[in-house]
Amino acid sequence: MRVLLRVAYDGTNYSGYQIQENGDTVQEELEKALLDLFRHPVETIGGSRTDAGVHSMGNPVVFDIDTRMKAESMKNALNVRLPEDIRVMSSVEVPEDFHPHRVPSKKTYEYRIRIARTVIPTERLYVHNVHVPMNLLLMQQAAKYLEGEHDFTSFSSVHAQVNSRVRTIYECSVTSERMNAIRRNPTMMQTAPKKKMQEVGDFGDLITIRVTGNGFLYNMVRIIAGTLMEVGRGNMTPEDVKKSLDAMDRGTAGPTAPAKGLTMMGTEFLM
Amino acid sequence: MRVLLRVAYDGTNYSGYQIQENGDTVQEELEKALLDLFRHPVETIGGSRTDAGVHSMGNPVVFDIDTRMKAESMKNALNVRLPEDIRVMSSVEVPEDFHPHRVPSKKTYEYRIRIARTVIPTERLYVHNVHVPMNLLLMQQAAKYLEGEHDFTSFSSVHAQVNSRVRTIYECSVTSERMNAIRRNPTMMQTAPKKKMQEVGDFGDLITIRVTGNGFLYNMVRIIAGTLMEVGRGNMTPEDVKKSLDAMDRGTAGPTAPAKGLTMMGTEFLM
Repeated sequence: MRVLLRVAYDGTNYSGYQIQENGDTVQEELEKALLDLFRHPVETIGGSRTDAGVHSMGNPVVFDIDTRMKAESMKNALNVRLPEDIRVMSSVEVPEDFHPHRVPSKKTYEYRIRIARTVIPTERLYVHNVHVPMNLLLMQQAAKYLEGEHDFTSFSSVHAQVNSRVRTIYECSVTSERMNAIRRNPTMMQTAPKKKMQEVGDFGDLITIRVTGNGFLYNMVRIIAGTLMEVGRGNMTPEDVKKSLDAMDRGTAGPTAPAKGLTMMGTEFLM
Repeated sequence: MRVLLRVAYDGTNYSGYQIQENGDTVQEELEKALLDLFRHPVETIGGSRTDAGVHSMGNPVVFDIDTRMKAESMKNALNVRLPEDIRVMSSVEVPEDFHPHRVPSKKTYEYRIRIARTVIPTERLYVHNVHVPMNLLLMQQAAKYLEGEHDFTSFSSVHAQVNSRVRTIYECSVTSERMNAIRRNPTMMQTAPKKKMQEVGDFGDLITIRVTGNGFLYNMVRIIAGTLMEVGRGNMTPEDVKKSLDAMDRGTAGPTAPAKGLTMMGTEFLM
């Protein structure tokens, strides 16, 4: 039977998801656990090849196995064999022809940014820290330009080896803890509108960039995050982001944001 | 001069804040950094003796030093000498008679609980995971009984060596991510009130117990969290919490919740 796992991990101690010659990888740990469970090597296909330091709430992983064990039981059987920073969140049987790269899907990533003069120790491995306030309204305007079907050449690594750099972003949102607090209590806004809007994106705030699309190129979400931060700082305008898309030139977009701020949130298969 | 630091840390790799014979402590790392900076031993007084695995966003620490360096500059000078899981968030000069145990203060702690069948890897060191849904409304009712001035004998370790177990809790709140989402979008509530209330405290939700008081006894916040979880599960009623307070008997309250879910949020000095 073919089994689909959703694999969550803390990417801190791994050289990314996919097996490589040097360095520990999540896939290697997973295949070691499968070997221990089934007593023979099991090949797996991962949905997303996340980079070193990138985290995941549930990367889809598929493999074929001939066993009497129920797919649902594999979750716990694998978790007792895996290190604590890797967890199988679910295991289900899927049709024999299911393939995570061929079934249309919606993938969601989140990039988190703390605005603080000093890094908060418990966040140091999971959130990108910046020392300057950011204008969230401008970041939101810029994010809107990225939505839709576009050629994302400017927003992907020049090393990405693909036939087409056209992808569709269904949604790209920019929110923050303070923005959410203001939405919960709109009277804050009515009594002191200017002050409250200034506080959004100021010291102490935690910004989340959430992107959902049909697929992402190498480094694409990190370049989107790096570019939106340039807009938030005033180094680029929202219109510059539109122009950068049109230019199809990596040099026109912002830098690649650090890996640790990025978390793969999940993949929804459309079938 | 007398200097007040606010020291944040990830408590995972330490045997608590206070120096002890066995195991690494936050205080020891801090005093090593002070020794390296000032070239002679510096004694420190910490505000809260957090346990092994407990985190902090800013434990107040006071010391005396004879130097020309400005207090404000010590923050960065210490951070370059400290490990990454300990950060000085601020450093200011305070009056010579300032003492963190003698100045009246409001201390705030947060205890975080994730309701999930499988532990989320990036949260494994910072959030307590439980496998059962909880009734947040009952937890909120129980929390109200803890507010005010009470003898917290039932809610402190029998090993606490103190003259009085009377403390004042200014506020004890229970909130969750889903509860906040409903508050942000009250129409969710109006259109489907029953469904939404069921979702609060169900699988996937993150609960935060926030307690502010004039001081806390040994293990007090973790026993409060453990007791409120018993209420959330239906093993105790909110009235049982009131009765437990009155009984002044540790055996009548719930268990001590695990350290990793606890974070010391800060101390406000009332002067």
